Amino acid sequence: MSIRIGIAGITGRMGRLLTEEVATAGAALSGGLHRGEAAGPLFSASDVVIDFTHAATAEAHAAAAVAAGIPLVLGSSGLSTAQEAALAKAARAVPIVYAANFATGVNLVLAMAERMAAALPAAQYDAEILEMHHRQKVDAPSGTAIALGRAVARGRGTTLEEAGTESGRDGHCGARGTGTIGFAALRGGQVIGEHSLIFAAGAEQIVLTHRSFDRRAYAAGAVRAALWLQGRPPGLYDMKHVLGMN
Amino acid sequence: MSIRIGIAGITGRMGRLLTEEVATAGAALSGGLHRGEAAGPLFSASDVVIDFTHAATAEAHAAAAVAAGIPLVLGSSGLSTAQEAALAKAARAVPIVYAANFATGVNLVLAMAERMAAALPAAQYDAEILEMHHRQKVDAPSGTAIALGRAVARGRGTTLEEAGTESGRDGHCGARGTGTIGFAALRGGQVIGEHSLIFAAGAEQIVLTHRSFDRRAYAAGAVRAALWLQGRPPGLYDMKHVLGMN
Amino acid sequence: MSIRIGIAGITGRMGRLLTEEVATAGAALSGGLHRGEAAGPLFSASDVVIDFTHAATAEAHAAAAVAAGIPLVLGSSGLSTAQEAALAKAARAVPIVYAANFATGVNLVLAMAERMAAALPAAQYDAEILEMHHRQKVDAPSGTAIALGRAVARGRGTTLEEAGTESGRDGHCGARGTGTIGFAALRGGQVIGEHSLIFAAGAEQIVLTHRSFDRRAYAAGAVRAALWLQGRPPGLYDMKHVLGMN
Amino acid sequence: MSIRIGIAGITGRMGRLLTEEVATAGAALSGGLHRGEAAGPLFSASDVVIDFTHAATAEAHAAAAVAAGIPLVLGSSGLSTAQEAALAKAARAVPIVYAANFATGVNLVLAMAERMAAALPAAQYDAEILEMHHRQKVDAPSGTAIALGRAVARGRGTTLEEAGTESGRDGHCGARGTGTIGFAALRGGQVIGEHSLIFAAGAEQIVLTHRSFDRRAYAAGAVRAALWLQGRPPGLYDMKHVLGMN
Repeated sequence: MSIRIGIAGITGRMGRLLTEEVATAGAALSGGLHRGEAAGPLFSASDVVIDFTHAATAEAHAAAAVAAGIPLVLGSSGLSTAQEAALAKAARAVPIVYAANFATGVNLVLAMAERMAAALPAAQYDAEILEMHHRQKVDAPSGTAIALGRAVARGRGTTLEEAGTESGRDGHCGARGTGTIGFAALRGGQVIGEHSLIFAAGAEQIVLTHRSFDRRAYAAGAVRAALWLQGRPPGLYDMKHVLGMN
Repeated sequence: MSIRIGIAGITGRMGRLLTEEVATAGAALSGGLHRGEAAGPLFSASDVVIDFTHAATAEAHAAAAVAAGIPLVLGSSGLSTAQEAALAKAARAVPIVYAANFATGVNLVLAMAERMAAALPAAQYDAEILEMHHRQKVDAPSGTAIALGRAVARGRGTTLEEAGTESGRDGHCGARGTGTIGFAALRGGQVIGEHSLIFAAGAEQIVLTHRSFDRRAYAAGAVRAALWLQGRPPGLYDMKHVLGMN
Repeated sequence: MSIRIGIAGITGRMGRLLTEEVATAGAALSGGLHRGEAAGPLFSASDVVIDFTHAATAEAHAAAAVAAGIPLVLGSSGLSTAQEAALAKAARAVPIVYAANFATGVNLVLAMAERMAAALPAAQYDAEILEMHHRQKVDAPSGTAIALGRAVARGRGTTLEEAGTESGRDGHCGARGTGTIGFAALRGGQVIGEHSLIFAAGAEQIVLTHRSFDRRAYAAGAVRAALWLQGRPPGLYDMKHVLGMN
Repeated sequence: MSIRIGIAGITGRMGRLLTEEVATAGAALSGGLHRGEAAGPLFSASDVVIDFTHAATAEAHAAAAVAAGIPLVLGSSGLSTAQEAALAKAARAVPIVYAANFATGVNLVLAMAERMAAALPAAQYDAEILEMHHRQKVDAPSGTAIALGRAVARGRGTTLEEAGTESGRDGHCGARGTGTIGFAALRGGQVIGEHSLIFAAGAEQIVLTHRSFDRRAYAAGAVRAALWLQGRPPGLYDMKHVLGMN
């Protein structure tokens, strides 16, 4: 019998994409949850629930997962420390995947970035991060670009704050520092998201690039996490566990 | 008989590259000029002289070209308004190519940038310029990146100053403006120079990229200009004339 | 008053995209034509008609444009020699834009390819064309890749057949020929279309890339052609005339 | 005191690059070995020897390393099975690094390719390998491209032969197979070596690129291996051990 997946917030844009990805994966849709409905019935009828709604409902949904004894995939962002603590507590009873970005490729790229940075001496390989997004985006660098920078710093046994950054070079900014991490941002058109991590040495260059063509990648990653959770012991997991990159 | 090319500043780095490119082009080397030597004998023995030395000697060399009745290729930078006026006056007697960048590809890319900008409505195609250079470079954007921006503005019937720029985005910088020209800079390794001009619309993207692997491209362009000058009428020419892109 | 644009085949996928692009351009939709309907009323009510339907109706629609005295944008493919002759005849009475590919960027890239090839000596700059398309595409190189190759050959004063091609290198294929044009094809995912033309010399590289994210680019190009046709003298035009690249 | 590095074949092109890289690394050059000289004195005066000469001398140099009780870095190619067996035997007494490609980045990219392939389902992510080399190269795909393909296959739990390849698409080649690995080759200019591994899915793309600007990368990798060998137990090591990617 197919795995039954429930979707919180099924009528939103993300809910519709999730519904399609459940079908693509050959799983069954056990039902959806609309804003304001009680969560219990959906959780009881499902083998796993995916929730990309709001930080405000994360705690209640985690409790419903515990009550029903089923795993949870949580993609809501902006959880408070207290909400994250409640999530960690629920994860002692049921397995939960909680991640900031569910796109398989982005998570893989983050894991690879850390390993590459660990192998390439910072004194010889300058790390630069380039991102391009649609013209409406108001801030730079993107969250994923910063996550890439943190991954590089981690691989080098330091933090982004300690390593130092050079972001948005303009004017007389002096020679590049050794070991610092550079950021540059392009804006234009309707680019959903393109990130490149460049390791530049004198004699060679290594570039790792991720391009998102469709927000569907986030839905596909969430469904993959839902399937992966079947039969897992309780615990709070990240996408890197789902992808076997830990 | 081969064209005889003289090289001012023959012992410098650029002089050596020019010497090699003269040979590659199958031309004859008529001789070189060392710092402090009188220019007359070299000019008399040559069909054309290439000068990449100093702004300070530009005027004297232009006068020597006029006296000998031969063309001149001038690649010195930082000429004052008076020095440029003297050059323009000399160009009434002999043909002179005077350019900021002699690399064939860079000049072609500048010409193409202007044409592309003229064909692509600024309201639909966001223009972004990305450049990467070696870690020692102290300023951003590069001179060639700015030249690319000016070419785009010209193609759009405006100037870079009027169009407005967004250079070095960092932090909360707001949504992208329509018609402005964006700049981003990467620094790392020993990259001699890489420039990309991106026109990004919702449904498509056009990218024009130039990569320099070797400063030799500047020498090759200068020799090409020297050969092109044979038989030209007096006048002050740019590399775009040499390349037939005007 | 807005220009009134009529759309033949308004209910098809291309018809829907055209309808949206007419609105985006601030033009008025005068109506649509469904399969089997008489063309006269639509042409009479329009300032210009766009037709992306079938080769079979091209001749009748051209005649209707002549009868109504309005211009026509024709994007149907596979016209016979006789059908093209009828189109040419109609173009003596009204202005017609007829093109194989209406995406602004692709046409601009074709025009630029020819100019670049004319400026870069074939003996020094190897021309390579790379294309990537979705996994379902059954042939290689793509039609646009071949059009790029023809543009390069034309710029060099020859034809693709005379210049010679190296397509799909595999195994022991010997050193690259001078002046030949290389082709390589990548297939994967759902890439709508990505083309790169590379001019590779020893000291520099110039790359011109076009990426299609959306078939909408074809619709946008057709609407642009429709607006451009207003007030033009009779004649058979190509997208390069619309883009001012001729 | 600095580590003393000896270089077999010190007067060749690779020997000169190695000499420079020894200095860059802050190590001491203990001496060089010229063709025909006895190896013993150099090995006795060194803490480690680097040998990029010929398969024919590999066995004698391995024996000299054992006699002197010092490690060896061997970069010669084309060793026979018997010569490799002799090397393996010597590696029971002293630590030896033996690899086909010493460039840090290439080895890192190979290791990353395997991990990425293991994380990305072949049914969703089409793997394509693109390489570009100078115009003189006579075969395609390059050895490193094939090594990339083998790494992808290994990550997917299969072999390149079993997975199947699509190399050099040209003409009517049919839709792309699922799970096969694609190859495409570009040739032009004096490109030392550029490799890209593309994982293309419907909603995203991940690209891992390596660019060699200089054969110096091979010398730098060899010196890095020499330093890494200090204090290691006997054994036959690969560059992936040096880079900590095993």
